[in-house]
Amino acid sequence: MAAENSQFSIINSQFSTWIWYPGDFEVWLGNIFNNRRTERGAMFPPFWKQDSHYVTVEFSKAFTLDHEETITIAAEGQYNFALDGKLQYIPLTSHSSPLTSHILPLTSKFTIPAGKHKLNIKVWNQATPPALFITGDTIHTDSSWLATYEDKLWIDENGVAHGSGIYVPAASWHFDAIDTPPSSFRLEREELRPVSATTPDVSPSATTPDGSPSGVLYDFGRETFGYLKVVGLKGTIRIYYGESAEEALDKEHCETLDVLTSDIRHQTSDIASKAFRYVYIEKEAGADYDEVLMDYEYAPHNASHSGSFRCSDDLINNIWDVAAYTMDLTTREFFMDGIKRDRWTWSGDAIQSYLMNYYLRFDTECVKRTIRQLRGKDPVTAHVNTIMDYTFYWFKSIHDYYEYTGDDAFVREMWPRMVTLMDYVESRLSPARGGSPATTPDTSGMAEGQADDWIFVDWVDFPMHKRGTLCFEQILLMKAMETMALCAKLLGINKSDYRVKAEQLRNKIKQTFWSYDKRAYYHAVEEGTMNTQITKFPNMFAILYGLAYEEERREIMQSVMLNPDIPAITTPYMRFYELETLLIDGRHEQVLQEMRDYWGGMLHEGATTFWEKYNPEESGTQHLAMYGRPYGKSLCHAWGASPIYLLGKYYLGVRPTKPGYEEFEVRPSLGDLDWIEGDVPTPNGMIHVSMNREQMKVHASEGQGWLIVGDQRIKVRANEEVTIQISNTQ
Amino acid sequence: MAAENSQFSIINSQFSTWIWYPGDFEVWLGNIFNNRRTERGAMFPPFWKQDSHYVTVEFSKAFTLDHEETITIAAEGQYNFALDGKLQYIPLTSHSSPLTSHILPLTSKFTIPAGKHKLNIKVWNQATPPALFITGDTIHTDSSWLATYEDKLWIDENGVAHGSGIYVPAASWHFDAIDTPPSSFRLEREELRPVSATTPDVSPSATTPDGSPSGVLYDFGRETFGYLKVVGLKGTIRIYYGESAEEALDKEHCETLDVLTSDIRHQTSDIASKAFRYVYIEKEAGADYDEVLMDYEYAPHNASHSGSFRCSDDLINNIWDVAAYTMDLTTREFFMDGIKRDRWTWSGDAIQSYLMNYYLRFDTECVKRTIRQLRGKDPVTAHVNTIMDYTFYWFKSIHDYYEYTGDDAFVREMWPRMVTLMDYVESRLSPARGGSPATTPDTSGMAEGQADDWIFVDWVDFPMHKRGTLCFEQILLMKAMETMALCAKLLGINKSDYRVKAEQLRNKIKQTFWSYDKRAYYHAVEEGTMNTQITKFPNMFAILYGLAYEEERREIMQSVMLNPDIPAITTPYMRFYELETLLIDGRHEQVLQEMRDYWGGMLHEGATTFWEKYNPEESGTQHLAMYGRPYGKSLCHAWGASPIYLLGKYYLGVRPTKPGYEEFEVRPSLGDLDWIEGDVPTPNGMIHVSMNREQMKVHASEGQGWLIVGDQRIKVRANEEVTIQISNTQ
Repeated sequence: MAAENSQFSIINSQFSTWIWYPGDFEVWLGNIFNNRRTERGAMFPPFWKQDSHYVTVEFSKAFTLDHEETITIAAEGQYNFALDGKLQYIPLTSHSSPLTSHILPLTSKFTIPAGKHKLNIKVWNQATPPALFITGDTIHTDSSWLATYEDKLWIDENGVAHGSGIYVPAASWHFDAIDTPPSSFRLEREELRPVSATTPDVSPSATTPDGSPSGVLYDFGRETFGYLKVVGLKGTIRIYYGESAEEALDKEHCETLDVLTSDIRHQTSDIASKAFRYVYIEKEAGADYDEVLMDYEYAPHNASHSGSFRCSDDLINNIWDVAAYTMDLTTREFFMDGIKRDRWTWSGDAIQSYLMNYYLRFDTECVKRTIRQLRGKDPVTAHVNTIMDYTFYWFKSIHDYYEYTGDDAFVREMWPRMVTLMDYVESRLSPARGGSPATTPDTSGMAEGQADDWIFVDWVDFPMHKRGTLCFEQILLMKAMETMALCAKLLGINKSDYRVKAEQLRNKIKQTFWSYDKRAYYHAVEEGTMNTQITKFPNMFAILYGLAYEEERREIMQSVMLNPDIPAITTPYMRFYELETLLIDGRHEQVLQEMRDYWGGMLHEGATTFWEKYNPEESGTQHLAMYGRPYGKSLCHAWGASPIYLLGKYYLGVRPTKPGYEEFEVRPSLGDLDWIEGDVPTPNGMIHVSMNREQMKVHASEGQGWLIVGDQRIKVRANEEVTIQISNTQ
Repeated sequence: MAAENSQFSIINSQFSTWIWYPGDFEVWLGNIFNNRRTERGAMFPPFWKQDSHYVTVEFSKAFTLDHEETITIAAEGQYNFALDGKLQYIPLTSHSSPLTSHILPLTSKFTIPAGKHKLNIKVWNQATPPALFITGDTIHTDSSWLATYEDKLWIDENGVAHGSGIYVPAASWHFDAIDTPPSSFRLEREELRPVSATTPDVSPSATTPDGSPSGVLYDFGRETFGYLKVVGLKGTIRIYYGESAEEALDKEHCETLDVLTSDIRHQTSDIASKAFRYVYIEKEAGADYDEVLMDYEYAPHNASHSGSFRCSDDLINNIWDVAAYTMDLTTREFFMDGIKRDRWTWSGDAIQSYLMNYYLRFDTECVKRTIRQLRGKDPVTAHVNTIMDYTFYWFKSIHDYYEYTGDDAFVREMWPRMVTLMDYVESRLSPARGGSPATTPDTSGMAEGQADDWIFVDWVDFPMHKRGTLCFEQILLMKAMETMALCAKLLGINKSDYRVKAEQLRNKIKQTFWSYDKRAYYHAVEEGTMNTQITKFPNMFAILYGLAYEEERREIMQSVMLNPDIPAITTPYMRFYELETLLIDGRHEQVLQEMRDYWGGMLHEGATTFWEKYNPEESGTQHLAMYGRPYGKSLCHAWGASPIYLLGKYYLGVRPTKPGYEEFEVRPSLGDLDWIEGDVPTPNGMIHVSMNREQMKVHASEGQGWLIVGDQRIKVRANEEVTIQISNTQ
């Protein structure tokens, strides 16, 4: 995968695939994806700018033919076709409106004589991304073709062409058949039946006591996602969805609902996909139906290239399974936050999904799609998702992606949009301290939230300001700058100023926020004054993002992370990072216990997927409420699945030490378990690890690495199993 | 018109109109418009970036209702609807795919209780601009509504909304009925018949001597534009269009053609509009048809609010009429360069169309549409039409627009995009002279063409470099900077640095390019050395754009404009400016003679509209060739119509002296004519002028002005005719 994608290499593939302008498929699909959110029947698009694909794109390639060759050209959109700079006649009848989406593309055939040639094809499509498919004996559209949105090719009064557009390699994925163009993309489906259908004893809430016939509550057995199908419908029915039975039965407050009427010829596909475990259906007078089913919708994955985990504790195994199912439900066209409510891509949520995904499905296409979509297009008019922290995570996610995949072609593709996003960030940094007295903390060059920025950090249950210059944000910004420096170096771009800027910021964060007294980073500078609140947020990111070196890290663990006086984190979102610091500190037993309490706690409450937020001190329907709404909380939220990542990286102990697992290390740890066993996917292979109290085994199918036990480093070569015995004194 | 558009005023209209995000209608329509160009049956989109509308737009308004009110909501696109921040249920069945264009919008009804309310509606549409129409007793969508493409309205964990999007007044035009949304926009049509149908004596050229039956040549009597209709078609026919009979009969080289087949159920509308006077049709074996007609397509205009001109010389009258017809053919959804070939909007062509239009139809909506479309969207990745001069004209066109209309609302609308375009220009200016010796000409802060810039100036028939730092370009840049300064001042924006920059550039142009010896501006600095060629281009713009003051102007007239050793201009494009300098110099008789020779020359050659280029020294089919193609030249080109502007501004002598004709001057001039008479439209009225050797009459229906005769200034008041006698010694 990494090899195939290597930078700008010319691939002469033996088959054709649909091509388009890089990022445009994601921008277009992202709008469809994010606009599927509904709230009680109303569409709920995001509050950030939705971009559009480039509506006119030119594709080109030069080649030499030994023999005359007849090619078939198909395009999504109206197109032209120039051979060696000369436009060719395409009969009018093969044109269609560029304003509608095409499920079946328009095709024509053309014969090209032997010799050296250049093909240029321009495709225009307002509704879906302009896309091209050409196939012949030797001519195939693929990523060796170039794409541009402005060729700048002008013709002077003598008919001579001049110009200098900017060309990039065309994008492609797996659309390898002429009749499956990009706009036809759909996830997979599988029919499921409810496990029970009951008439509720207690009459559900109703707006009016109209004596309407009582309905039926269907239970699909666990949280699921897809398209409800009502077979044999006559008349009108009302459908109330619930992640809990309480929600489905609360007609006034359930988050999603539908009204279906048979006489407008509804097909199954007319009911938009929903997240639910329960469905409560009421019939209007005279209405009836035969059966209720659903089409479960999912992104297919390769089971033989997936992570796994098993151990001696069934509760931990159960947590891993439910976390994996939570991930599978939220891994879709893009990584989604939660399946019921937002159904959006959120950068802060996504970066965790990516990391979990590297230990579960290794679906790098979904990572790339999500990164592209979150970035969208220039001009940058807001932070990613409007959230400052989410912009910074976006940069970090490219760092992580490169680390796990070694795919520099993607870094190269994203680089121009990284630069313009960082330009936006830098244009909003605090100016050099002018007249402010030297005694006030120096926040020049730091990122302070502006009126139109959302500073998220976390949903917290304790008082915490999000105004001023937050230490947490600066650490993320430092990492973003370091990512810029890393990528510039990787691409051979002379932008060493990012390295300097990151280093300057690193020093300034320490000077400004570190308390030598408290051995901790303070929270923020507000209006020239230090807010000396201490929270886990900046302190744990100081550890995770490499601001704190070993000695300081140990101090922070004691003064903050293990200090019971510091307010607790209550979202799985930040527990992800919190637990990682504990594991870096070697507290594997403690973290297993935290998993049993926290994730086990959700299972104990009946969770079939992990939640957006969990407070063990709440009970009953309190667990369902959030955002001031009784069922506002998402019960299937990607950030709840962090055990996948933690168990893979810190118990199986596998991580890349050179990009794309060219080199890796395996540092297994049992914690309090008797045995563990599992797999971690790598770009083109798998690493299998098993450990019990007596021995460890490692097998890797690509790359090379080290099995690390205490101070020992044992070399692991591809396809050679390494077994070592553990001394009792370990 | 100016009054109605005044800045951000809240209009409580009595009727509803479709609204959308400003500029989006033009971006969308502009793509359709520019992509209609074909070359011998192949689509020919522009080589610059085609932008897209914002695909998701929110519209909002706050209001107070005395009584409960039921509103009808219609949208082009999928939409939601929030009352006082709460999303309302809209039945699923009123949703439709956002991926197709809607001719009939989707509607629903909603009842709002009495009281103070806020409505927020989000509309998503990939294919056509999201648009909204709401109508009720008192609630009407109009330009008092606000629009945004990102509301940045986020909801915290307690359900509290926060946010700070940027809102602008919604755009609207004349789409005042619920069933005529913006995407339904079409020009008017009128059926026309050919004036003759002949079988050519000489067999037309053919690729193969296949003995195909000879065809029929239809002549529509003069240049026209629209949709050919073939009635009763059976089988397949081949259609060759020609602006000349030669072109239509040259099947191998005519610029546009069609193949029509009856069995694919072609409707009239399936033949794209074409420009032609002649149509040559050949039938394939077995084909036949009953009749050939056309639908002439045109932008409607208000005859009672149009300019007119009549004088004692029928040739001049004929020139005016043919120029007016040329303008009417090229005034469409946008101002077009020429109707046969490009059919594109070009900024340099358009600025002349605007000026002519102020003296012909005063179609300010078409001016605004064209300015918006030429600008497109951010980010700026190229000059307007990729041409540096065309960027600078774009700024100047806003200056002109404001002068003729006084419409500051439009200036306010365009301001953000003026700033970002000027940012692009400034980012490419030459840096301060570093190590270069003080003896080389100083071009720091000047605009030199870069690799991806097209430097157009003019199509010239003599050797002239377009490389280096051209004096011509700097004068246009100076005017662009001055426009920025003027608009900043008008809008009360503190951007006085544009004034300073313009002033600095003015001084530097003079220091660098003015030859005290030659009394002229030199052509360019190339690689540190002055190219001392003298052309009319920089020198006439020094006069027209206010670089040269009176004394210098007179010198330039003698040393350059009237100097027979300076190479002649051969395009009507630059003759427009050349003749204006002669008229500023008071050479009205000479310019009439030039019109008789040059435009009269085209008429003598049989022109029914004016051409893209005319060289009186050529003859026969030489007049048809350009761009290396035998029929490449456009025979109906907007820039050929400049007599409209020159006769209105310098013979009728009417021009605004305060924005929007709040004040004006009338300075009539007969030249060598016995009498002249005509009308000039103003924003909401007309100025009528007549003059003969004895007297002048002026009548204005709005504003106030001065009739200027020699040193005399006679006040003209609205609706009071002023008549003055002219002494014989005049």
